[in-house]
Amino acid sequence: MAEVQLLGVRGSPFVQRVQYALRLKGIEYSFIEDNLRNKSELLLKYNPIHKKVPVFVHNGKPLSESLVIIEYIDETWGNYHIFPQHGYEKALARFWSKFIDDKILPPIFKAAWTVNKEEREKNTEEALQGLQFLENELKNKFFGGENIGIVDIAASYLAFWLPAVEEAVGLKLLSDDKFPKLLKWSQEFINQPIVKEILPSREGLLGFFKSRYAAISASAK
Amino acid sequence: MAEVQLLGVRGSPFVQRVQYALRLKGIEYSFIEDNLRNKSELLLKYNPIHKKVPVFVHNGKPLSESLVIIEYIDETWGNYHIFPQHGYEKALARFWSKFIDDKILPPIFKAAWTVNKEEREKNTEEALQGLQFLENELKNKFFGGENIGIVDIAASYLAFWLPAVEEAVGLKLLSDDKFPKLLKWSQEFINQPIVKEILPSREGLLGFFKSRYAAISASAK
Repeated sequence: MAEVQLLGVRGSPFVQRVQYALRLKGIEYSFIEDNLRNKSELLLKYNPIHKKVPVFVHNGKPLSESLVIIEYIDETWGNYHIFPQHGYEKALARFWSKFIDDKILPPIFKAAWTVNKEEREKNTEEALQGLQFLENELKNKFFGGENIGIVDIAASYLAFWLPAVEEAVGLKLLSDDKFPKLLKWSQEFINQPIVKEILPSREGLLGFFKSRYAAISASAK
Repeated sequence: MAEVQLLGVRGSPFVQRVQYALRLKGIEYSFIEDNLRNKSELLLKYNPIHKKVPVFVHNGKPLSESLVIIEYIDETWGNYHIFPQHGYEKALARFWSKFIDDKILPPIFKAAWTVNKEEREKNTEEALQGLQFLENELKNKFFGGENIGIVDIAASYLAFWLPAVEEAVGLKLLSDDKFPKLLKWSQEFINQPIVKEILPSREGLLGFFKSRYAAISASAK
């Protein structure tokens, strides 16, 4: 059995967060594909609480929650720093990663995956507020400076998944006029080899999102 | 100006989390009381994003989010370890603290502060599931072992605030038969000097919660 295993599904932005971290560190791992419609015994055993991927397994010890996993990886393996090394900068990186997970992604998901106009408007407004704080925070090529760091990884959904979701559900959050820095960052991010080489097919993702939205629209009628 | 400042309101369980950490470390600090009905310029300046307490200020640099603040404190000052020192244990402590904030406290707040029966039932069930995972996780005197650690601090709402809320709103979550370990832990926790000495008056808290619930009941009619 390999020392490092990742239970995941292909194309999940949260699973890919962990894959970026593993690639940045140059860690060999085996990817165990799960099926979320018929969850494996292994997934239920390793993550009985959330029953979700990613699950990271190191020497038989499982961890879940992508940000928790990545901080563990950063502390366990050397040769690239995903988190800043200094106290205050490190704390701010934790703050912004948490902000993305608590205040940006949830309203985006709610705005996207509904056919209720009011719910979409309310959550769009909330998402735009959060995105504006993030736009203001971007002062270099990456949130982490000249190289990818934890905040870039936390925000990675915005770079690749969100544009496909926007197209599939007819929503526009990341407009040129409001978020020029985030859009430039998106291009930089998805063009990094460690990212680009494992991104799912945009066409496949778009098809998946379109049928998901069609199903929501149909069930709301 | 003191080197360490804490912006807070008396009696807030989230502000007190930071106070426990400061007391465990023996750090001198000045407490700057805020008024949440009329937020200070200082609060808006230091926490423009969430506009919430606690805000921790070290040498003029502000941080918010209680768990982020405490990890910064733990990394910056020595002489007591709030987080475990070893990789996997440390990651698990982060996992459980996040679990409490994401999966236990939100359904408790929703179950408590509503007069809608269905909403209370749904959230009570969710809270009980989360509490059961936590009950199973408690293997020593404290979550941190023989001494208070980050998970105890994260769970501190359950030890002192929740019983008062239960009484004020007529809800029972922490019953003897279901959660004997959590109830024993609650007593241990609130009897620790660093905790006991700064707990708010139970009577005052109960009065506050009762009038809050009466206001919710009245506005729902």
